[in-house]
Amino acid sequence: MKKNILVIPGDGIGPEVTAWGKAVLTEIAELSGHEFTFDEGLMGHAAIEAEGNPLPDETLEKARRSDAILFGAVGHALYDNDPSLKVRPEQGLLKIRKELGLYANLRPILLFDELLEASSIKSSILKGTDILFFRELTGDVYFGEKQRSEDRNTASDLMIYHKYEVERIAHKAFEAAMQRGRKLCSVDKANVLESSRLWRETVQEVAKSYPEVETVHMFVDNAAMQLIKDPKQFDVVLTANLFGDILTDEASQIAGSMGMLASASVGDGTGFFEPIHGSAHDIAGKNIANPLASILSVALMLEISFGLKEEAQLIISAIDQVLKEGYRTADIADKNTSASHLLGTAEMGGLVLKFIKQ
Amino acid sequence: MKKNILVIPGDGIGPEVTAWGKAVLTEIAELSGHEFTFDEGLMGHAAIEAEGNPLPDETLEKARRSDAILFGAVGHALYDNDPSLKVRPEQGLLKIRKELGLYANLRPILLFDELLEASSIKSSILKGTDILFFRELTGDVYFGEKQRSEDRNTASDLMIYHKYEVERIAHKAFEAAMQRGRKLCSVDKANVLESSRLWRETVQEVAKSYPEVETVHMFVDNAAMQLIKDPKQFDVVLTANLFGDILTDEASQIAGSMGMLASASVGDGTGFFEPIHGSAHDIAGKNIANPLASILSVALMLEISFGLKEEAQLIISAIDQVLKEGYRTADIADKNTSASHLLGTAEMGGLVLKFIKQ
Ligand SMILES: CC(C)[C@H](C(=O)O)[C@@H](O)C(=O)O
Ligand SMILES: CC(C)[C@H](C(=O)O)[C@@H](O)C(=O)O
Repeated sequence: MKKNILVIPGDGIGPEVTAWGKAVLTEIAELSGHEFTFDEGLMGHAAIEAEGNPLPDETLEKARRSDAILFGAVGHALYDNDPSLKVRPEQGLLKIRKELGLYANLRPILLFDELLEASSIKSSILKGTDILFFRELTGDVYFGEKQRSEDRNTASDLMIYHKYEVERIAHKAFEAAMQRGRKLCSVDKANVLESSRLWRETVQEVAKSYPEVETVHMFVDNAAMQLIKDPKQFDVVLTANLFGDILTDEASQIAGSMGMLASASVGDGTGFFEPIHGSAHDIAGKNIANPLASILSVALMLEISFGLKEEAQLIISAIDQVLKEGYRTADIADKNTSASHLLGTAEMGGLVLKFIKQ
Repeated sequence: MKKNILVIPGDGIGPEVTAWGKAVLTEIAELSGHEFTFDEGLMGHAAIEAEGNPLPDETLEKARRSDAILFGAVGHALYDNDPSLKVRPEQGLLKIRKELGLYANLRPILLFDELLEASSIKSSILKGTDILFFRELTGDVYFGEKQRSEDRNTASDLMIYHKYEVERIAHKAFEAAMQRGRKLCSVDKANVLESSRLWRETVQEVAKSYPEVETVHMFVDNAAMQLIKDPKQFDVVLTANLFGDILTDEASQIAGSMGMLASASVGDGTGFFEPIHGSAHDIAGKNIANPLASILSVALMLEISFGLKEEAQLIISAIDQVLKEGYRTADIADKNTSASHLLGTAEMGGLVLKFIKQ
């Protein structure tokens, strides 16, 4: 198999974690005899600095030509502190999602037994949890019209959904549920929002084609609570762009740390793989960041875009092994982690590579 | 002191918990010599059934004339299952919030030591947590224009804020922070939403008048995570209507159960006090619901609307006592709760009354 992969490191800790995702891909190619070639693209603050544009045409062109994309993160304190700046790193990410038609963002909440104790939630509550989020990614208040009044005293964003947008991701989520626990929870705020009522009606309709799947509808406020109270009740969770953004970050605490969660964005064409964590400027360049989410993003890429299930499993087993031997980055360390087992980004990445080879 | 209180029981478990809030008010009147008179109003599904209107004019008139309002909950499975229904219970609640100008919803996350173990979060993470949420309550996507296309295939809600709406609640939140830990966290999604950028700019401006308060700005996805990861970092949290709805329900897990959280909605006139839990049809009428959130709403009313701090403290002490003696409703029971200490709604309410008298 010959595949061309576009790497977009982005901002903050993006480059340092993505380097390890790429290293793992190179190792897998070597072991399996597949040929992976790499290209690199600019996005976010890095692209604004270099070209004044958070998503240069060249990056988009490369993305369209590639077989899969490995992405790091975008964002920078500069823009967070000054809301009036017009050109912003996140615009690059939103634009590439829209341009590539990446309407379904899959976020598996993968629990490593070894990390149960690293969570702030009791391990008895967590044990056995296995959730797959389907977050809609190209609609909602993210992409609806934005307005600012001339006097700058009124601002608005349009929260909008079209039926076909709900249908296509609902089908994907139900199909996934059929392959898993056959339970689907659709999250909305239909008691208040018209767009949520369209969402709920449409999911109710699509559900009819999947009678084997037990479907429930939950309000987003309740879902935010239930995720912590009793995460085991969930199998597939299907939700809109904004609610999915909030709920999946929250759910990262189930997996012990945001540094452990990968996501796959799929839709009309090339798949896009990224950690769910952000650019985390405060720890960038310090060799502290956890590279496992980027490495797990690579596992998702191998499985989803290239159909290489065994190779994906090899990566997950290697991570499992590393964790079993007690190695941790700071974000997943607990009181049982000895100083000699507390690793930096590069050491953790290197160790995973070593275990993949073995 | 002579006060007239409007009781709006609403739907589901609303009536059975509100009955105990009212009973506590009656007891406090007796003990303190204040005179509380009561009136009752219809709202929600109950009002739709009786008058075809989720907020009859009569209820609104009574609300305007009263010195404070004790509210239960609204909502019914009927409407949740059929998103196409035009007249809905929640419209009553939204309308009364708007009509009475209740723009600031205060949700204190009050932790009873005895309940630390009832939470799914580790007690070591929780201990010492004390958060006061300020949720904006009369703006945002809740009240922006709703549209449905003629073919019913497109639906939208306008997420909109005016600067004065952000200013007035920000001042309230900063003033509260000055009386507490002098820390304020404003939550938004300014990296994506124009309304959040207005929110952030405005809070940055208002913050200048409170230089003693340490102000941070957090994206809502991160906040949803941080609340579970490290709740102790928060003092006052200030946020918009929709984000506040989600985050406060999530934060209920810090207090062990939604059944323990009260809220106060204040603004231009009469204060409005209610549990943060919903109507919970599934357990309505079964004498299972926890009446403590309604009783705690009464404590908030006494303190905030009537300035009766001692009486409010009396109620909280009584609840503390009841919990210390091991009594629990089902939602806050844990493995240490003996069968004889597991109480129904009426038994729990009665016991709190008894401890108030003592
Ligand atoms: C960086 C930001 C625009 C983005 C989002 O909100 O979608 C991020 O939080 C995510 O979840 O991928
Ligand atoms: C019932 C519903 C309209 C309401 C809201 O979303 O505001 C409730 O969830 C709340 O938090 O008071």
